[in-house]
Amino acid sequence: MGYFDAASGVPLHPVARQALVASLDEGWADPGRLYREGRRARMLLDAAREAAAEVVGCRPDELVFTSSGTRAVHTGVAGALAGRRRAGRHLIVSAVEHSSVLHAAEAHEADGGTVTRVAVDRTGAVAADAYAAALRPDTALACLQSANHEVGTEQPVARVAEACRAAGVPLLVDAAQSLGWGPVPGGWSLLTASAHKWGGPPGVGLLVVRKGVRFAVRGPSDERESGRAAGFGSLPAIVAAAASLRAVRAEADAEAARLRRLTDRIRARVPQLVPDVEVVGDPVRRLPGIVTFSCLYVDGETLLHELDREGFSVSSGSSCTSSTLTPSHVLRAMGVLSEGNVRVSLPAGTREEDVDRFLAVLPGAVAGVREKLGAPVAAEDARPESDAVVVDAVGRRCPIPVIELAKVIGDVPVGGTVRVLADDEAARLDIPAWCEMRGQEYVGEEPADRGSAYVVRRLG
Amino acid sequence: MGYFDAASGVPLHPVARQALVASLDEGWADPGRLYREGRRARMLLDAAREAAAEVVGCRPDELVFTSSGTRAVHTGVAGALAGRRRAGRHLIVSAVEHSSVLHAAEAHEADGGTVTRVAVDRTGAVAADAYAAALRPDTALACLQSANHEVGTEQPVARVAEACRAAGVPLLVDAAQSLGWGPVPGGWSLLTASAHKWGGPPGVGLLVVRKGVRFAVRGPSDERESGRAAGFGSLPAIVAAAASLRAVRAEADAEAARLRRLTDRIRARVPQLVPDVEVVGDPVRRLPGIVTFSCLYVDGETLLHELDREGFSVSSGSSCTSSTLTPSHVLRAMGVLSEGNVRVSLPAGTREEDVDRFLAVLPGAVAGVREKLGAPVAAEDARPESDAVVVDAVGRRCPIPVIELAKVIGDVPVGGTVRVLADDEAARLDIPAWCEMRGQEYVGEEPADRGSAYVVRRLG
Repeated sequence: MGYFDAASGVPLHPVARQALVASLDEGWADPGRLYREGRRARMLLDAAREAAAEVVGCRPDELVFTSSGTRAVHTGVAGALAGRRRAGRHLIVSAVEHSSVLHAAEAHEADGGTVTRVAVDRTGAVAADAYAAALRPDTALACLQSANHEVGTEQPVARVAEACRAAGVPLLVDAAQSLGWGPVPGGWSLLTASAHKWGGPPGVGLLVVRKGVRFAVRGPSDERESGRAAGFGSLPAIVAAAASLRAVRAEADAEAARLRRLTDRIRARVPQLVPDVEVVGDPVRRLPGIVTFSCLYVDGETLLHELDREGFSVSSGSSCTSSTLTPSHVLRAMGVLSEGNVRVSLPAGTREEDVDRFLAVLPGAVAGVREKLGAPVAAEDARPESDAVVVDAVGRRCPIPVIELAKVIGDVPVGGTVRVLADDEAARLDIPAWCEMRGQEYVGEEPADRGSAYVVRRLG
Repeated sequence: MGYFDAASGVPLHPVARQALVASLDEGWADPGRLYREGRRARMLLDAAREAAAEVVGCRPDELVFTSSGTRAVHTGVAGALAGRRRAGRHLIVSAVEHSSVLHAAEAHEADGGTVTRVAVDRTGAVAADAYAAALRPDTALACLQSANHEVGTEQPVARVAEACRAAGVPLLVDAAQSLGWGPVPGGWSLLTASAHKWGGPPGVGLLVVRKGVRFAVRGPSDERESGRAAGFGSLPAIVAAAASLRAVRAEADAEAARLRRLTDRIRARVPQLVPDVEVVGDPVRRLPGIVTFSCLYVDGETLLHELDREGFSVSSGSSCTSSTLTPSHVLRAMGVLSEGNVRVSLPAGTREEDVDRFLAVLPGAVAGVREKLGAPVAAEDARPESDAVVVDAVGRRCPIPVIELAKVIGDVPVGGTVRVLADDEAARLDIPAWCEMRGQEYVGEEPADRGSAYVVRRLG
């Protein structure tokens, strides 16, 4: 099986499946009712809450089940901001949070609040000091993911939590990618997670609000789940989520070590097997199952199709869903190459031979895409040199502008420049990234009739 | 099986169970992804949407799946109000809507909007003319349930929709109780429903927004389900919801006729078997499976416990959840007796012999509760008459104030009065209701040191 997109969701864990099917018969009634079917449902719900709280490391009455991880984030951010409204309306997030956090931040801005987006380094990590420096007297809430969903880099949550605690600001940790692997360290105030990331069923999220954290529910009132998750949820799914969280945690250490060996292999082998590749994300402080790389002169979506045809399901930060074609905000914030981006996220239980088969297939897939796009190969024909060359790639989509740049850089003498005219958003990120990879000088961007002119000086 | 609380939720329909279990293996991936698992999930989602839309009678692109019926209502009300903000901020609801609609209305008021709550008659129905009269130039949205969840009375949706259409106001119909029985008539603009009311799994709601209806999504943006249902929902549950909706509709007409015979029997027999009972709700224009009655001199919660002990699960508008002890807003709006209230809502497939067993058990259960509470029996000892008697029931919970009233009414001569001092909220509803049932005159309510004095004149 070549499903390597665990970071978006994994098939049901066998324990989840068993718990779900079993509780279809016991857990359909309203746990708020007093008759036998309701009492039975209530017992299942209470037991699920206790099990989940134990794994998270919180009190059962601090944890509610929501209808998704996204919903947990939206409710958590809005509730914490409203609860701390007296302190102020300033929100801090990292620049590489999941879209649910960033969308909640945009909604807060639209509502008149202010947002600081803390930058990350080239590995995708925030610096704890920089994060702490963003704290202000009017900061109502700070949000930081435990680990990044696109590149796997772990964030310094414990140190940021310490700084937040010192400033009296609650920290919400989006633990969607990491909760199945282990508890979130440090003194966080709120925590969110999503069951289908750890092998639980879709449609179940967790929202934990520590006792003492000010929290004001927004929107219409509802008596269920401490008023924090309106509507009648799926109890069988909740039972399955809790049971599988406990089960994956029991296997987590051994499986993490095994997956880490596999992703280490991918990290090491891909640059050897495929020319012009940049592996991104922190090589050490990272989730066990995620490895992300970008391939020069490759269109991410086409590469995904090629890999899909070979039986591998991966995702790409350069075309992450069928409806989105802009480069991922994560890769942009990291300042790394976005073209030909591939995220490999291995589900628990991934077999070694499937990883090896992926490594065997990848070079040909990349070469095929490059050939179709007319990407430069090592030996280009020598052409007459000119001091300044202009490449017109207006109207051409990524990775064409970079391909055209690479084709002509040899036509100018060392010290000469190439001006690339382009209006594709990705060029702004990928041309500087190409220069860094190739040891050429990125001079800068100038306005042009359509789009921009990106100026590159040949150094060697 | 004596589970007679279908109006809160029913066990999974066999078709739903089969569809859910089957799609656990096919439907776990993200339908927004381009690889094979994602495409398979997308096909399942599209097929479910088409099936549900066909049953509802709308276009597939008008229907989104939400995480519950409550969520569908909250999103539908907020989105329609925001979309019509230019028209004004006036919202119309009936006084007997489900709490999700009333809570959305309260949230709208808290946000500065205005709400008209249209009264109902003693059967629980709004008058279409009275509803139409509530329409104003600044009305942004009108909401009306298709049928009431506590007493089963059907609302004049088609006529109200016509009036709304003439006024250019969108009508949102909460079809939670009726969608499994048949399509909602008339030219409604928005429709909401909840799968676990028709035998689908919990955690799935429907929100339909007709093309051309102005709708502005509130809260953080999200790309799924046309932006109207944030978060990764449970695709297996959605597939099961759609499959079971189609299945229950195929059986609906025959099953409705069968259940109607059973509820007709309950409606007819309960007043013969149990003294001092009021059957409430429209006897004809009603849902097939619901019948609701109130028993004088009975505490609803205690009666529920007695019936539970006999193996029957019903609910009560006088103690509808473990946390709520106030009389239901529905019974209050209807002006009918709330004490000793029992809602029997038969699931599809209810056996005739279980209904007969319920009718055999009910009289003893009611008599037992009355005996414990010291309720009056037919032959009271003659006591010396006095022109004006005062009963102090302050601090006593319903139904004690009515029981005390009934005990002393024979002590005053015809034309004399009884003043009942009480501070239980339910007395305000139940003392007038008792007077109507008993042919005595309810004179009115006067303020008292604690609570109120309810004055009753003996007529016979």
